[in-house]
Amino acid sequence: MDVHEGDFVVLYFNERRWYVIKARKGARYSFNEGVVSADDILGKTYGETLKTHLGIEFKLAKPTIYDIIYNSFKRRTQVVYPKDAALIVLKSGIGPGSRVVEAGTGSGFLTAILAYIVRPNGVVYTYETRKEFLDLAKANLTMIGMDRFVVFKNKDVKEGIDELGVDAVVLDMADPWDVVQHAFASLRSGGVLACFVPTVNQLEKTAEKVREIGFVLIEAEELLSRKYKVSRGETRPEMRMVGHTGYLIFARKP
Amino acid sequence: MDVHEGDFVVLYFNERRWYVIKARKGARYSFNEGVVSADDILGKTYGETLKTHLGIEFKLAKPTIYDIIYNSFKRRTQVVYPKDAALIVLKSGIGPGSRVVEAGTGSGFLTAILAYIVRPNGVVYTYETRKEFLDLAKANLTMIGMDRFVVFKNKDVKEGIDELGVDAVVLDMADPWDVVQHAFASLRSGGVLACFVPTVNQLEKTAEKVREIGFVLIEAEELLSRKYKVSRGETRPEMRMVGHTGYLIFARKP
Amino acid sequence: MDVHEGDFVVLYFNERRWYVIKARKGARYSFNEGVVSADDILGKTYGETLKTHLGIEFKLAKPTIYDIIYNSFKRRTQVVYPKDAALIVLKSGIGPGSRVVEAGTGSGFLTAILAYIVRPNGVVYTYETRKEFLDLAKANLTMIGMDRFVVFKNKDVKEGIDELGVDAVVLDMADPWDVVQHAFASLRSGGVLACFVPTVNQLEKTAEKVREIGFVLIEAEELLSRKYKVSRGETRPEMRMVGHTGYLIFARKP
Amino acid sequence: MDVHEGDFVVLYFNERRWYVIKARKGARYSFNEGVVSADDILGKTYGETLKTHLGIEFKLAKPTIYDIIYNSFKRRTQVVYPKDAALIVLKSGIGPGSRVVEAGTGSGFLTAILAYIVRPNGVVYTYETRKEFLDLAKANLTMIGMDRFVVFKNKDVKEGIDELGVDAVVLDMADPWDVVQHAFASLRSGGVLACFVPTVNQLEKTAEKVREIGFVLIEAEELLSRKYKVSRGETRPEMRMVGHTGYLIFARKP
Repeated sequence: MDVHEGDFVVLYFNERRWYVIKARKGARYSFNEGVVSADDILGKTYGETLKTHLGIEFKLAKPTIYDIIYNSFKRRTQVVYPKDAALIVLKSGIGPGSRVVEAGTGSGFLTAILAYIVRPNGVVYTYETRKEFLDLAKANLTMIGMDRFVVFKNKDVKEGIDELGVDAVVLDMADPWDVVQHAFASLRSGGVLACFVPTVNQLEKTAEKVREIGFVLIEAEELLSRKYKVSRGETRPEMRMVGHTGYLIFARKP
Repeated sequence: MDVHEGDFVVLYFNERRWYVIKARKGARYSFNEGVVSADDILGKTYGETLKTHLGIEFKLAKPTIYDIIYNSFKRRTQVVYPKDAALIVLKSGIGPGSRVVEAGTGSGFLTAILAYIVRPNGVVYTYETRKEFLDLAKANLTMIGMDRFVVFKNKDVKEGIDELGVDAVVLDMADPWDVVQHAFASLRSGGVLACFVPTVNQLEKTAEKVREIGFVLIEAEELLSRKYKVSRGETRPEMRMVGHTGYLIFARKP
Repeated sequence: MDVHEGDFVVLYFNERRWYVIKARKGARYSFNEGVVSADDILGKTYGETLKTHLGIEFKLAKPTIYDIIYNSFKRRTQVVYPKDAALIVLKSGIGPGSRVVEAGTGSGFLTAILAYIVRPNGVVYTYETRKEFLDLAKANLTMIGMDRFVVFKNKDVKEGIDELGVDAVVLDMADPWDVVQHAFASLRSGGVLACFVPTVNQLEKTAEKVREIGFVLIEAEELLSRKYKVSRGETRPEMRMVGHTGYLIFARKP
Repeated sequence: MDVHEGDFVVLYFNERRWYVIKARKGARYSFNEGVVSADDILGKTYGETLKTHLGIEFKLAKPTIYDIIYNSFKRRTQVVYPKDAALIVLKSGIGPGSRVVEAGTGSGFLTAILAYIVRPNGVVYTYETRKEFLDLAKANLTMIGMDRFVVFKNKDVKEGIDELGVDAVVLDMADPWDVVQHAFASLRSGGVLACFVPTVNQLEKTAEKVREIGFVLIEAEELLSRKYKVSRGETRPEMRMVGHTGYLIFARKP
């Protein structure tokens, strides 16, 4: 498998130093390890070992969609962590063909993940009031070809959700309680509402509203990810850890 | 949306008591709350409220694929938790169209989740030495119509993986280190190996082998899920918690 | 070292079955493993191996004060966990000679731990409105000889703390915010207020009050204890875990 | 209560900026907030508000012993965290009057905590092979007047423990398994061995040895401390967290 124009490529130096670049004819990429020209990479085979102008070796590898999202997307907002995005997808029953409403779009990280999973027949309707975020998200998703599975809506989701009978509504916003009723109206029976909020106060207020509106099978949880440093005879958890990202609330329309 | 013959249906009594059943003409279902006959349910609309023969009310709701998997699948082995399955899917870059190798099949819980996500054009090749588990998994997946995205292989994956150029290899077995080399051979460049193991010793031995074989971007982590009891003025984590399921190792073929 | 009349003794059968008893002439103790008579134990040496009337072997061991507290105290309330009690003691600067106010007494578990640490010159003033709890706690502490380091007060601490210039105030009660001002008045400069509360709402309300009253160096934290099952080649965390006990708030009077 | 020559004093600017100093006639202390002269502080009352030469206000507060240890001790080694030190003290049954063996001394943080708790009649025997660490620890403990409850031993604890019938042995060293037998010989019946180790491999090796030597009531656990940012309507755990310090093993001599 060769590197083609426009491919995202991992330049792998070592476990701590690796970069995701987009190979574009004529482009040059500068790192601490030296300069790499796109022309040296194009046509090369994934897995091959090359050198920077300083003679430092690196390998070419194909990135996953998540490498690209988390390394190449521009971000102007807090972005969802993989652990949280993953559970949102799974517990909301989102899969190929799903119709999903999301708000707010933010930098589009979660939008991209949702789009990747609902392909090719599903669609993500994403609501964002701030035009500049929506444009950023659109640019990010266009870069990886995921924009065609998304309808970008520069609208305030608090004023209502246009789509009906959707499979899931995913809310990653500061005040989801104002949207819970619209979510209920928009969802099909058995459809899932998933909310992500950073504080315990938002957790409480959201869960309360969700219950009041008539959702059932309400679950609230948080995920802690603990990384390990693994080497023979010296295995232990990493000393530093992300102690908190946010709380997840899942609920079902009966 | 009405309940049809063969549908999986949630009979929802309250947040602690709800059941997933398969609606089949003539069937009767007994619960602590009373008996429900399938004929009372067929043709009814999701969201409707009905009563058992004891007069206890319940609502009809459509389950997610995960409700069905975790409530209706027969299990004869330890099964993967949603938090772990979700991260495996996401960090392995698995999506619609992916070609994935899995071993061992066990009761087929993870197989079903993988199949659901790779639909309709992807495929899951699942290896299992024990015929009785493979048959159980096949029956489980057939029940939800996911068997057609899966190739069930009654083979020992330690003797080699037949498929080449696959996108991901997922190992949920006691001794994954014996398969790491086969996984490397089977994966395409940039393909992901994901392993799930319960003990720190397996974690260490697997990660060591993975490094030795030439995988890169090796990550080891565990996820802790903390559930919350949320009610106004009394919000706190649940007193009881699943303290451990297993460790996850992710690695990339360069 | 021999077993004397009135000693607390551990009868150790195995890692899962062991009991703390008080050796009293003429007493008989019944377990699943058989009956043991106090007279068989009195005068025996710690470390010795004996048998029940069923011939099952056990060892005699001296308990720690904590074995006795957590196994022999009668309890009619939620009791503090060792992890929380330990951090309260340390972060409050409590040691031999400290003068400590505690409320409420409850079953006296924390009272006993505090008394044990402030011995022989310190004193614990413990407030409890419910006479029956105070009596229970007094009986518990008398059983281990710790009552003489404690002043038991059947008073509502919300009406004020009688003692002045104390080193620490420890509040394990549902509404500590009503006592924060009294704690401030009671503490010496540099004295520590420690509160233990189960819910996030109490955490927030207490911390807010503590700040308002003028305390400084305010810290809020929770401790999670994760037990391990350790055996060669099969080491892993326990599957079940206490997911939550409560939140700790520490603050200093400037 | 006034500030006297030689007192440790907290100069409190705000929740993020506070310092522990030792008030010595003629000394001057420089901070980002300006210079403070000891002569301005001596004779002042705790709780009073003063100003630096830049006019920035601070309060005088009395530190706890732990403020002094964690802020004023010189450190040349990894030091024990309060959460771990606290549980070691409590679960080992250490209190006023206890006779405790500790190895290795390191910078003396745990030694100081143990000394503080065993006062005035107990004693800590601390073993350290590296003379420079022992001297550092001695200087640290002398600074707070805790050296008189400690016997500093420049000996290799692997060659044996001189003391007999001790109440607890606390091992904070890389290879505690070589000392487990000596600990057994040194402890009284019912005495507690507590070990602190950073890796899972040490955990396994230590626990195995402890079991082999004949200890009982063996427990292995780790503590996770999660700090909270508490403010009205915005309460949540801190984003950053110490993900790991080490594993604790407790065992009892029967």
